[in-house]
Amino acid sequence: MPRYKLTVEYDGRPFCGWQRQANGPSVQAVIERAIKAFTGEDVTIGGAGRTDTGVHATGQVAHADLSKDWPERTVLGALSHHSLPDPVSILAVEKMHEGFDARFSAIRRSYRYRIHNRLAPLTHDLGLAWHVKTELDAGAMHEAAQEFVGHHDFTTFRHTRCQAKSPEKTLETFSVRRDGEFLIAECASRSFLHNQVRSMVGSLRLVGEGKWRVGDITKALAARDRKACGPVAPADGLYLTKVDYRSIEADLEEQRLWAHKRAATQPE
Amino acid sequence: MPRYKLTVEYDGRPFCGWQRQANGPSVQAVIERAIKAFTGEDVTIGGAGRTDTGVHATGQVAHADLSKDWPERTVLGALSHHSLPDPVSILAVEKMHEGFDARFSAIRRSYRYRIHNRLAPLTHDLGLAWHVKTELDAGAMHEAAQEFVGHHDFTTFRHTRCQAKSPEKTLETFSVRRDGEFLIAECASRSFLHNQVRSMVGSLRLVGEGKWRVGDITKALAARDRKACGPVAPADGLYLTKVDYRSIEADLEEQRLWAHKRAATQPE
Repeated sequence: MPRYKLTVEYDGRPFCGWQRQANGPSVQAVIERAIKAFTGEDVTIGGAGRTDTGVHATGQVAHADLSKDWPERTVLGALSHHSLPDPVSILAVEKMHEGFDARFSAIRRSYRYRIHNRLAPLTHDLGLAWHVKTELDAGAMHEAAQEFVGHHDFTTFRHTRCQAKSPEKTLETFSVRRDGEFLIAECASRSFLHNQVRSMVGSLRLVGEGKWRVGDITKALAARDRKACGPVAPADGLYLTKVDYRSIEADLEEQRLWAHKRAATQPE
Repeated sequence: MPRYKLTVEYDGRPFCGWQRQANGPSVQAVIERAIKAFTGEDVTIGGAGRTDTGVHATGQVAHADLSKDWPERTVLGALSHHSLPDPVSILAVEKMHEGFDARFSAIRRSYRYRIHNRLAPLTHDLGLAWHVKTELDAGAMHEAAQEFVGHHDFTTFRHTRCQAKSPEKTLETFSVRRDGEFLIAECASRSFLHNQVRSMVGSLRLVGEGKWRVGDITKALAARDRKACGPVAPADGLYLTKVDYRSIEADLEEQRLWAHKRAATQPE
């Protein structure tokens, strides 16, 4: 049963998020329906990041097991076709070994956050960027963003309903730059807490407006208290842009270790 | 009665174009309704370019006469507010002399055409770019675009229902460049014929695909025959980006000339 890695782009606006829901359209359901239309199989796919309602992706990754060994380009063409007219696009399909798991083999998730920083209402960017009217200081925001980099307890910057066991994460990079009327924030980490990026960006906005200083970010982080977080940024501007994976060798090594452990704990 | 210059951005998707129509929403009607809501006046506004159904703008210009001398920022705020929730955004408001006319004082219109050049279906760019799946050679398209620059009879590249008296226009510039998955075509002219940009881009696409050579553009132009045009590019990728105007002095000089002519032809 070959396992396929799917790289997926989507416009999050019409969806209640990545994950299949009883009531409401989801990206996962669109792709699972496309697989059903293609092979007739009921397949449950796994995604690297469970993006929220309205959050976008240009590089989400999922894996799907198909019963037949289809050529990659056949799967790509069929899933692209059967996803229409939903704004979900399969960018790439790659056949993987069984040990590959879109979620657990991932070693880095990258997110981009787009702020459209101008007074005039948005038109083409409605739902695709956060509209912030006050002029933001990208340099100050970038400087403050460095406070988040490294290993921290991100209790302040996660959703109260976040289900992760530990609030500790290691943020690898976080940059903020201006591009004309836009501010582009980009960050990467092995994994993120629920609403972490939107919470961090929402607080950085206060720095950009001059209401907070860099030290206020440091204090908010140290507080380990959700109430110390600035107003959370909306879903509109958030894009899951890339998921990086460990090498196949590392994946297979992990598999061997687990097989070994299982064998060792088998009753004789 | 002060005359205001409005710089306008809009998402063309929900509109049957710039111009007010008996049946169908138009950008002009949105702005005229906003003025009515603001001052109670029934004002007819004039636009620099009458963009077609689905065509976008980031720098359309219109003029409106208001009976009261409002501060520019008041007009900007009020029209922005009353245009909501339509995707029409007033970017700037400037008080002008009476001789200013958004259409007739214009000396240059600039258009951008965006092509999203990739195999996968579009998501965020649906209706905002032309989706071309065949890989395009931007260099060849740029070279061929230079054939359009200068003074030509553009009969081949205008709509059969184009109402301009003469098919002759002088294209000032035309560039095509690649930006990642995108091809950006930009051209400028004092004025354009109906469907001229979309006709030229549609033919350049054939050059980008290798189906036409530069010489085929030259021949199509020389044919002065609508049937020699390549398939016309869709409205989706077209943006009116900028309108340039002659100086106020030139405007007033023009006004004086006309006043003089009128006076000269008055019965004694």
